Amino acid sequence: MTNTSNGLERFVRNCLHDLKPYIPGKPIDEVKRELGLDRVIKLASNENPIGASAASKEATRKLLDQSHIYPDGNCFELKQAIVKNLQVSMDQLIIGNGSDEIIKLLAEAFLNQGDEVIAPTPSFSEYWFAATVMNAYVTGVPLKDDFTYDIDAMIQAVTPKTKMIFLCSPNNPTGTYLSKTELETILNNIPSDIVVVMDEAYYEYATADDFATGIDYINSHRVVVLRTFSKAYGLAAYRVGFGIASKELIHYINRVREPFNVNSFAQVAATAAIADQKHVEDSRDIVEEGKKLLYNAFEELGLPYVPTQGNFVFVDTKKDSKDVFTKLLHRGVIVRSGDIFGQPTYIRVTFGTAEENEIFINELKEVLAEL
Amino acid sequence: MTNTSNGLERFVRNCLHDLKPYIPGKPIDEVKRELGLDRVIKLASNENPIGASAASKEATRKLLDQSHIYPDGNCFELKQAIVKNLQVSMDQLIIGNGSDEIIKLLAEAFLNQGDEVIAPTPSFSEYWFAATVMNAYVTGVPLKDDFTYDIDAMIQAVTPKTKMIFLCSPNNPTGTYLSKTELETILNNIPSDIVVVMDEAYYEYATADDFATGIDYINSHRVVVLRTFSKAYGLAAYRVGFGIASKELIHYINRVREPFNVNSFAQVAATAAIADQKHVEDSRDIVEEGKKLLYNAFEELGLPYVPTQGNFVFVDTKKDSKDVFTKLLHRGVIVRSGDIFGQPTYIRVTFGTAEENEIFINELKEVLAEL
Repeated sequence: MTNTSNGLERFVRNCLHDLKPYIPGKPIDEVKRELGLDRVIKLASNENPIGASAASKEATRKLLDQSHIYPDGNCFELKQAIVKNLQVSMDQLIIGNGSDEIIKLLAEAFLNQGDEVIAPTPSFSEYWFAATVMNAYVTGVPLKDDFTYDIDAMIQAVTPKTKMIFLCSPNNPTGTYLSKTELETILNNIPSDIVVVMDEAYYEYATADDFATGIDYINSHRVVVLRTFSKAYGLAAYRVGFGIASKELIHYINRVREPFNVNSFAQVAATAAIADQKHVEDSRDIVEEGKKLLYNAFEELGLPYVPTQGNFVFVDTKKDSKDVFTKLLHRGVIVRSGDIFGQPTYIRVTFGTAEENEIFINELKEVLAEL
Repeated sequence: MTNTSNGLERFVRNCLHDLKPYIPGKPIDEVKRELGLDRVIKLASNENPIGASAASKEATRKLLDQSHIYPDGNCFELKQAIVKNLQVSMDQLIIGNGSDEIIKLLAEAFLNQGDEVIAPTPSFSEYWFAATVMNAYVTGVPLKDDFTYDIDAMIQAVTPKTKMIFLCSPNNPTGTYLSKTELETILNNIPSDIVVVMDEAYYEYATADDFATGIDYINSHRVVVLRTFSKAYGLAAYRVGFGIASKELIHYINRVREPFNVNSFAQVAATAAIADQKHVEDSRDIVEEGKKLLYNAFEELGLPYVPTQGNFVFVDTKKDSKDVFTKLLHRGVIVRSGDIFGQPTYIRVTFGTAEENEIFINELKEVLAEL
């Protein structure tokens, strides 16, 4: 023990002891190195298998001679590109170092010690992380048995201390979503001062006719919508996402944002990516193909799966998911084990290219035959 | 007023009302557009006038086909490159989305409501920002009349509530620094549990024989050293900096870090930049040339300046610095006005290329003749 560690665990903020480190999907190189494999595919992080738009790469290349210049702290051009695409104004936008940064900024703007937050479970772990950093308490409301939202339970969970509700739609890791009726039922049956965060990271993949976006409610309610360039736009490496809310809410969230939170390359790549909607369509097409292929395979194997609105599917392997995960890993296929989401027989699989999907299905069949 | 703004100012956290937005240096394009100017030079943000290393740009280009893949949340290769250069181990490092992110993480890891923080004044505004977000109180300790640190006053400012001390050396905006004796006097005369943050963003430019780096004290004291790639390495657009401390401190700071806080391009660019120390030397050389040129000009003009260890200089124009700033701006030269640092006759000027320095000196002479 060095001098610096004496009593350190009592010197740090209490909440730090409640924060569990996030476990990211294993990187391909690490798996290759550790297991001595040549062919490894990663269907674990809901990345876009067709990559980024060529336009976004070109925009990055062009900016390289400005590497030494600080980013535009206001993300002016990116905001302009977003408002052209959505019916909102520039002062209704905040840009983040990934939309996960905005989750933390929301906690910093609104949550005091002892405040309560509601979130569905299982869902994205960042809601717990951000609330815990601010000493707020998260009430997890279980999804129903079919993994759809339990609207009544979400509303019942509200107490006088509730300041924020997270809704993830399409929900990670289940792919389930909120319909317009369900979202309006929530909004109309909770106190109007509660901030409702609609995390729509997988928005571009949603196909359901009654899928609801929070954007329609940013002026009538305290709704904050989160979108990202990491998924359908294929820009996960850059770290860029955005929030949409009333200008009054955005004004306050901006107060806790650091001045240069979004790097310059992320700004130009995202700006270029918005202009290339064909690439987003192609990304959607490949997800639809994957959905068809995997649904068929699961039905053939007798594995129950959750119909998804995302670029991933949550499937019940009927075996211990840690075993399935490990055996797939040794065959060069990285997925997410459901035990980290409290579902110890499920795995979450990202739809890949046609080739990757075939590899996954074949390896899964072999693995299940072994278990 | 929309529905969302009713009572919002009372719903947000109290500290938000104390947070003043950071005022970044004006971007060149904005000045050109607003003032109809063709030639605009920016000596306002302490950027590197010779840009980034070619190697870092090449590393970025090579990674473009991985745009859709999430960054390595552990920054493995960048940490490896840093430890090769410094006598520390990988678990003594934390990488941030700029070192300013690490300032916020430090506040989140250690500061509870009512805790106290000490910082020199004038200095980098992010210390106030981060502490205020966590409801901590900052005691600003004025630098002495010659803008050097008032060591006794820093030590006297400690109370039983003090949890953290920020030391910026070389200090922004003054360019003054802490000697080894001064730093040790502070470390040996404060309670050993206080976290001492040594912000060494301008470290690479320091030339004083007795300049002290906090790295020598990370194992004996609770010292956290902050370094950045935004200055001497010329990578401000990427957002990447790092913290160095005992592994116990790093362990806790990591708890409040988001998993993918550093973008992939920042990681490879910084890794490549470390290998190109020739570029850092060139950056130093141009600063030394600028120093000589501007010191001479100031002496000729009879303007007192603060001898600097950074890539910028704080000079007393003996006029209202807002007027000097505005008149220089209209002549296409962007500097920082000292009034934002509480020094209403000073300006802060970044050393530029030889040509930029000449332009600045000529325009300054004209401006001062007019006032």
